[in-house]
Amino acid sequence: MFNTVPLVQIIRGSRLEAVYRGAMAIVNARGHLIASNGDTNLTTFLRSSAKPFQLLPLVESGGADHLGFSDRELAVMAASHNGEEFHVQAVVGILARLGLDESALQCGAHPPLHPPSARVLENAQQQPSALHNNCSGKHSGMLAQCVDRQLPIADYVSPQHPVQVAIKQTLAELASVSPDSIDVGVDGCSVPTFALPLSAAALAFARLADPSELSDPRRSALQRIASAMMAHPEMVAGTKRLDTEVMYIGKGRIVVKGGAEGYYGIGILSSPGLGVAIKMEDGDGGRGRNAVVIEVLRQLDALNGEGLASLAHYAAGPMKNHRGLIVGEVRPCFQLTH
Amino acid sequence: MFNTVPLVQIIRGSRLEAVYRGAMAIVNARGHLIASNGDTNLTTFLRSSAKPFQLLPLVESGGADHLGFSDRELAVMAASHNGEEFHVQAVVGILARLGLDESALQCGAHPPLHPPSARVLENAQQQPSALHNNCSGKHSGMLAQCVDRQLPIADYVSPQHPVQVAIKQTLAELASVSPDSIDVGVDGCSVPTFALPLSAAALAFARLADPSELSDPRRSALQRIASAMMAHPEMVAGTKRLDTEVMYIGKGRIVVKGGAEGYYGIGILSSPGLGVAIKMEDGDGGRGRNAVVIEVLRQLDALNGEGLASLAHYAAGPMKNHRGLIVGEVRPCFQLTH
Repeated sequence: MFNTVPLVQIIRGSRLEAVYRGAMAIVNARGHLIASNGDTNLTTFLRSSAKPFQLLPLVESGGADHLGFSDRELAVMAASHNGEEFHVQAVVGILARLGLDESALQCGAHPPLHPPSARVLENAQQQPSALHNNCSGKHSGMLAQCVDRQLPIADYVSPQHPVQVAIKQTLAELASVSPDSIDVGVDGCSVPTFALPLSAAALAFARLADPSELSDPRRSALQRIASAMMAHPEMVAGTKRLDTEVMYIGKGRIVVKGGAEGYYGIGILSSPGLGVAIKMEDGDGGRGRNAVVIEVLRQLDALNGEGLASLAHYAAGPMKNHRGLIVGEVRPCFQLTH
Repeated sequence: MFNTVPLVQIIRGSRLEAVYRGAMAIVNARGHLIASNGDTNLTTFLRSSAKPFQLLPLVESGGADHLGFSDRELAVMAASHNGEEFHVQAVVGILARLGLDESALQCGAHPPLHPPSARVLENAQQQPSALHNNCSGKHSGMLAQCVDRQLPIADYVSPQHPVQVAIKQTLAELASVSPDSIDVGVDGCSVPTFALPLSAAALAFARLADPSELSDPRRSALQRIASAMMAHPEMVAGTKRLDTEVMYIGKGRIVVKGGAEGYYGIGILSSPGLGVAIKMEDGDGGRGRNAVVIEVLRQLDALNGEGLASLAHYAAGPMKNHRGLIVGEVRPCFQLTH
């Protein structure tokens, strides 16, 4: 079982109604553990929180430059996007640059995460395609690595494919763990997903925010990926999504990437940079996870009063019922120790 | 904090990815604790799991007969319904019998829980009304109590209103606790919601399934409510809902009522009857809660092989990704001790 601690309480009236448990590690870019809650060795899959690192080999190798990708295109390659029209068109454009189309994507199809976009398809009686899959940008980035390195594309999702081997090796280096120690599962979109201790994942996020102690070309590549995500936060998630809104409010000081099953990664561009890896025990990616993310940013002074106010709809606070009456409260119950 | 235990594991590859915690009590109609997991004294709001009991005073007092309500109408009064057209029309009919219309409902409005029904409204650019609120049947039943007892309807949601006082008193008796020990909160639909220990709530469900040791008119009223719910399970929830499907498969042997924030009540019509009260710690009402409910019914031999197969989509088992690959498993990890 996981070794977790209570992170958020849901209170109704004066009584406890639900509790979200989890664990987190906060590590600086020098690899020092700054703060934690629960077991910092908790080892579980990063899921989509790994996307900035799954993109790294393409940028570090120069492939992104060879192929002429814009920052906006890099951002959607690091995305769990909403399947809004602008996301879909960006992925179509990336694939066209590679001489490919959506038939090359092996992510499978699901309706757009963005409800209005899902409804547009449904009302037109159109089936969602692989382009609408929230991972289609990541897959197009993996295909770009294939094209740039002249590798076969038919099996790019296989853990043995050179693109996946390079991703695992790169992530291991960034997290300062042995590649052999990284357990591999199959992600929702069929590519490998990687299990790391929270402290190791936090180090990778610290280096995404602050690669100053790394050498080129990795340093430049991480800077470019983080800058692309922060400059185009709408590409990384989309309308009404936590990742997008936090990076808008963060104004170049906060880079974030959520993952499935309650995973969340944060990089804070301080000196030295900070990395945060959070795992919600129950896999929550809504009310509990959101309140934890905002509370961590508050406690780390990464968000100020105005920023916190702008993100209040994701944060702790009063709960209203269907008539707008305040009936309870979302209340974080953890304290980072520095 | 709650004293809970792990109930369901989510496994990806060979690795733990999430854990749902909770607690449950299983009590027979004689008030004996039969089995448990976690703290049977865990005291939290029943939310919508209280609906059969919130309806009880109307039936027990003879009001349901005076007003000529059908079993189908009683079932929707005990419902957290989907807001499908047949639910809405049933509530319209109940209100009409009372000489009222939807303006009397104080539950607030939300879109139908049933996505296709929500889309019909949206495509017609119609706002959802209080009739679509999943609690509109319960509210119409409370209004029926007002009309039958010639009580004012303007403040029927107030904890001091005689209808709410009678409900609390009735629930306390059924659960064999003092009314003063019942903590009251405001529910999502603005009426009082009641906090009871799991073991007490389980006793109330045992008596809903098997009121044989109670005296009339309560015995007959409980029999009628349970029968109405089991005869019209589509009224109690709706299309593709756990409650409805379990009661269809249960064929008059299982009565269930889910509630918000991971609450679930089950009555099993054995001799003596059994009552189950389940609370998911994190408030989960999906994957974790559903797997627990099916696993409890399996372990209690309340569902056989064919029934379990029909409900497999709610139960433990393989998890597939967007391409249909098996990537993991939903695995209950508790054992009832008899």
